[in-house]
Amino acid sequence: MSQRLSSTPTPPREIELWFDFASNYSYLSVMRIGQAAAEADVSVRWQPFMLGPVFERLGWSGAPFVVQKEKGAYVKRDMERLCAKYGLPWRWPSAFPRRALLPMRVAAFAAGEPWMGAWCREIMQMNFAEDREIDSPEAVREALNRLDLPAGEIVAAALSDEHRAKLRTQTATAIERGIFGAPTFFVGNEMFWGNDRLEDAIAWAAGRTSA
Amino acid sequence: MSQRLSSTPTPPREIELWFDFASNYSYLSVMRIGQAAAEADVSVRWQPFMLGPVFERLGWSGAPFVVQKEKGAYVKRDMERLCAKYGLPWRWPSAFPRRALLPMRVAAFAAGEPWMGAWCREIMQMNFAEDREIDSPEAVREALNRLDLPAGEIVAAALSDEHRAKLRTQTATAIERGIFGAPTFFVGNEMFWGNDRLEDAIAWAAGRTSA
Repeated sequence: MSQRLSSTPTPPREIELWFDFASNYSYLSVMRIGQAAAEADVSVRWQPFMLGPVFERLGWSGAPFVVQKEKGAYVKRDMERLCAKYGLPWRWPSAFPRRALLPMRVAAFAAGEPWMGAWCREIMQMNFAEDREIDSPEAVREALNRLDLPAGEIVAAALSDEHRAKLRTQTATAIERGIFGAPTFFVGNEMFWGNDRLEDAIAWAAGRTSA
Repeated sequence: MSQRLSSTPTPPREIELWFDFASNYSYLSVMRIGQAAAEADVSVRWQPFMLGPVFERLGWSGAPFVVQKEKGAYVKRDMERLCAKYGLPWRWPSAFPRRALLPMRVAAFAAGEPWMGAWCREIMQMNFAEDREIDSPEAVREALNRLDLPAGEIVAAALSDEHRAKLRTQTATAIERGIFGAPTFFVGNEMFWGNDRLEDAIAWAAGRTSA
């Protein structure tokens, strides 16, 4: 039990976060990953993708928490408790899962930008703390403006022929890599599913895992 | 965020563990709960139930890890990593989910006995560490004998008219309480799903939760 199961000789010190703005458990990880990764000296690679097509491909007719009422009832309570534990604001969105195509396109465009983390937290906060619509051009521009970013320019770039296909490519890659839910973390080829695995994934990236 | 969401004035200091011997994540909690609860001065109420009928009632054709190949592949890796982290022995069973009706009946009969925890760990170890069949009278007798218990007497009692319906009653109660997977913990009416919530559930039982 003392050997690393992974054959990677040196830890990558990078964690990929695969997420969708509509996903409530993604909300938890988007809000937490910046600090948790920084404390472990691990960098974050943001990987937005659309969860809907992934569920469809798995033969599910929609979000499991909507389709299965027992699980849905539980998840609402689980989110209340987890947000209280993490000190995060929380309100179950009046529209769930909320349409998020435009902010997701901006995220796919901006994934490598230094403001990507702040952008993701801003949109997640609107969806899951303020219960606000996030898919309109107005909402997206407002969020970008709050970050002192050139909103018009960014939205135009995200929707341009050059960049608008990026989100679709991300989603196809998610499917290829075997992703079946969000959030999902990758550290090299090691996959970790769910907000509950954030700490384990970061420990893996930092080489602190004895497994 | 500093108030308890629960209206319970004093913590119950008791945690219920709802589990099935065939469930791999139940294995983790069955092996861990004794020490974790003792350290928090919380007592454990063992609640065996049959997960199969619960899945059927939810319209699932079998264990999600068997039905969905993406999730199944992930779960195998997840179990390896978690067992390494917890220091637990692990082998993916050659039969999954393994038939466990007889040892489950013994568990339903013995739920209040002082040897219940040891019994559950013994059967779980046979299934998930030794990859052994657990549903035969021979396997069950052997496990009871290893615990220095009167095997013949216990099996006869578990199968008697007086006790054999207990497992069915447990499963019906699990469904009534909204259980949709295993392990599930209850602390009073607070439900926690999954081995990942063991620590949160114990903290809740001990009154250490600020939520």
